[in-house]
Amino acid sequence: MKAIKVGLLGLGTVGCGVVRIIEDHQDKLMHVVGCPVEVKKVLVKDLDKKRAVNIDRELLTLDPYEVINDKDIDVLIEVMGGIDETKIYLLDAIQEKKHIVTANKDLIAAHGTELLTAATEKKCDLFYEASVAGGIPILRSLVDGLASDRINKMMGIVNGTTNYILTKMSKNGSSYEEILKEAQELGFAESDPESDVEGLDAARKMAILARLGFSMNVDLEDVSVKGITQVSDDDISYSKQLGYTMKLIGIADRSSGKAEVSVQPALLPDSHPLAAVNNEYNAVYVYGEAVGETMFYGPGAGSLPTATAVVSDLVGVLKNMRLGVNGRSAVAPQYDKQLKQPHEIFAQYFLRIHVKDQVGALAKITALFSERGISFEKILQLPLKGENLAEIVIITHKASKKDFDEILSELHDLDVIDQVKSKYRVEGNGES
Amino acid sequence: MKAIKVGLLGLGTVGCGVVRIIEDHQDKLMHVVGCPVEVKKVLVKDLDKKRAVNIDRELLTLDPYEVINDKDIDVLIEVMGGIDETKIYLLDAIQEKKHIVTANKDLIAAHGTELLTAATEKKCDLFYEASVAGGIPILRSLVDGLASDRINKMMGIVNGTTNYILTKMSKNGSSYEEILKEAQELGFAESDPESDVEGLDAARKMAILARLGFSMNVDLEDVSVKGITQVSDDDISYSKQLGYTMKLIGIADRSSGKAEVSVQPALLPDSHPLAAVNNEYNAVYVYGEAVGETMFYGPGAGSLPTATAVVSDLVGVLKNMRLGVNGRSAVAPQYDKQLKQPHEIFAQYFLRIHVKDQVGALAKITALFSERGISFEKILQLPLKGENLAEIVIITHKASKKDFDEILSELHDLDVIDQVKSKYRVEGNGES
Repeated sequence: MKAIKVGLLGLGTVGCGVVRIIEDHQDKLMHVVGCPVEVKKVLVKDLDKKRAVNIDRELLTLDPYEVINDKDIDVLIEVMGGIDETKIYLLDAIQEKKHIVTANKDLIAAHGTELLTAATEKKCDLFYEASVAGGIPILRSLVDGLASDRINKMMGIVNGTTNYILTKMSKNGSSYEEILKEAQELGFAESDPESDVEGLDAARKMAILARLGFSMNVDLEDVSVKGITQVSDDDISYSKQLGYTMKLIGIADRSSGKAEVSVQPALLPDSHPLAAVNNEYNAVYVYGEAVGETMFYGPGAGSLPTATAVVSDLVGVLKNMRLGVNGRSAVAPQYDKQLKQPHEIFAQYFLRIHVKDQVGALAKITALFSERGISFEKILQLPLKGENLAEIVIITHKASKKDFDEILSELHDLDVIDQVKSKYRVEGNGES
Repeated sequence: MKAIKVGLLGLGTVGCGVVRIIEDHQDKLMHVVGCPVEVKKVLVKDLDKKRAVNIDRELLTLDPYEVINDKDIDVLIEVMGGIDETKIYLLDAIQEKKHIVTANKDLIAAHGTELLTAATEKKCDLFYEASVAGGIPILRSLVDGLASDRINKMMGIVNGTTNYILTKMSKNGSSYEEILKEAQELGFAESDPESDVEGLDAARKMAILARLGFSMNVDLEDVSVKGITQVSDDDISYSKQLGYTMKLIGIADRSSGKAEVSVQPALLPDSHPLAAVNNEYNAVYVYGEAVGETMFYGPGAGSLPTATAVVSDLVGVLKNMRLGVNGRSAVAPQYDKQLKQPHEIFAQYFLRIHVKDQVGALAKITALFSERGISFEKILQLPLKGENLAEIVIITHKASKKDFDEILSELHDLDVIDQVKSKYRVEGNGES
């Protein structure tokens, strides 16, 4: 029986996991796809580096085209990362009629549509389950499992680093800086954590989810992004008092054919399924018109979990090869892109302000909201020790982003306001 | 463009949901499968019954063979329930080369292998996603999403009625009987709740999950079953004090090639993802060797959620029709069935006993455990008011089922024991 030959671009954390799973689970692969699977060639940066797997040095190469142009290789697994150069490699590999499996969210978020089009033209598969939420098979669930439903909302905890930091801040009451340092020491945060803590990593994943879930070409630039670097322990502690949990949430929302995609620290009621997703775990909550609430939970990163998603995609390619139907599963977007404007985006808000301890201060604030027909769900007012100020924390009922932003700028001008300390979106309260 | 024609056996809660989704989501179906989908004929018991959907009376029939033998019908959707007669209908339909989508867990648990074999011979698809956990696409996730992994454990809250009852008992401190009555009034429990509360419904789903997840022909008879009718509010309240949540859990566990499948009320640590699955919701927790912990959460029943799973299966059939690859996705079991014996099944246990208030009582009990090398994780002892007895609640460390059952029978003979009140398995503590 002829073995299927696989080439790898990259042999880092995920790449080593892929090699290990292909070796360890050879019996299952044999059973499912009917023939052995063999790693034929691997692009690396350093031939002599010590690695987490034993791999024949003969298989390694420094030249990507030794992998891309190898006639024996049927499937190319891209786990090297990077965008521009990697895109060229994959397009060239598609010209060589290689099927592609990639874990590269940066690339798919930026150039997924172009790559998919090229692959479909050449009757090649291009799968990328591992690019979103590591080991959670969320993309398949959106495309196949919920194929018959109309998905109207997705909320994702899709970045493990920030979820780890916020979980620890919430449990220990420590500051962002302390926990970040600890996370870096434990390997849960990169030494350069910017793309995680500023929300860009999550934004990429949300763009990919929105594209599939809403069948609409959402670009990375359409995602509004705010990270967690400004989240204070006070914000978290007040949220808790009011029955809410702070998470970095990717929101993709659709109504009347228009979509909104954003990433921001937001508050969820403690009883919401996403509120219990802790530490480095990821989860994607999906609301479908017919199915209602579902949630998919699991490890969002890590060598073996991510590699599982890569190799499961590989199995998909191999099954298609056996049936002779590669390159025919991608579906073009059903809808033209239409994005919501600020007056069409509705949410509840958490607002924390310091006001001067004067008669009528709260009345002036309340007036700004009631002029726009916005009432409050909860208010907390406390004196600030040693200062002639009070702390006011408000959870509003639903307001449009436009109204809320206008109120914010007017608040700054009120004489009773000392400082607007923070504001967050509040989600999952059933007020949608 | 020629429409694909679908026949339905049954037009109850799920059947009406199927008709509604096919109508409402026609644009999405068109986009995904490339042609319209039309309901051609529907088997009903009563032609004149008022139904939750408007359907042309002309489409209804009292004769199953008007649907089964209709040459125009490509796909048969079975949502009538029942086992023996229904099996004959489906086998006959397969002989007529009809693809089958069914939501019938009773049938699949009892005769799934036979039906799948018949379908594969005739190059017909037979899909049954809706038979387990309603709207949660768990079967696809096991087969495709986690295709490359070796699944070693599944724990499921797969019965909504019992989860509703246990959640309410836990929140309100009420008795089983009170909550069952309330659940029946609210429509969360059947007027004859036996198959739910005795665990049989969950056992059927666990047999189906184990078959797919372990690639082994597990039969319904292999599943040991205990229901929730004996769970007392005291058991729940002591569990809570010790940091545990009571759930009806289906467990499918595999190690060294041997499997164990069971359904029983069991305790989970409050921090376990399944512990937060409340009310009528379902969830399946899957532990894969490589991926680690994942969980799939959603509505386990209901007209539209279950119908979503049915129609998503239908989409799978239609995609296969377009590609000409029907009947080729079923994979025969990889492993021969091997079941664990009691000395190979390990778990922690919760044990609640009433002992006579005598010196050395606890020592006698402890001795029985330590003889077999079993120690305790937690002990709670309280005097029982007005009686010369004490209540002892113990959480053991891991013990084999054989050892624990022997200890139980020896406990009954101890003179210091007044009564063994209850015992439960404790799962999810990372002690596996």
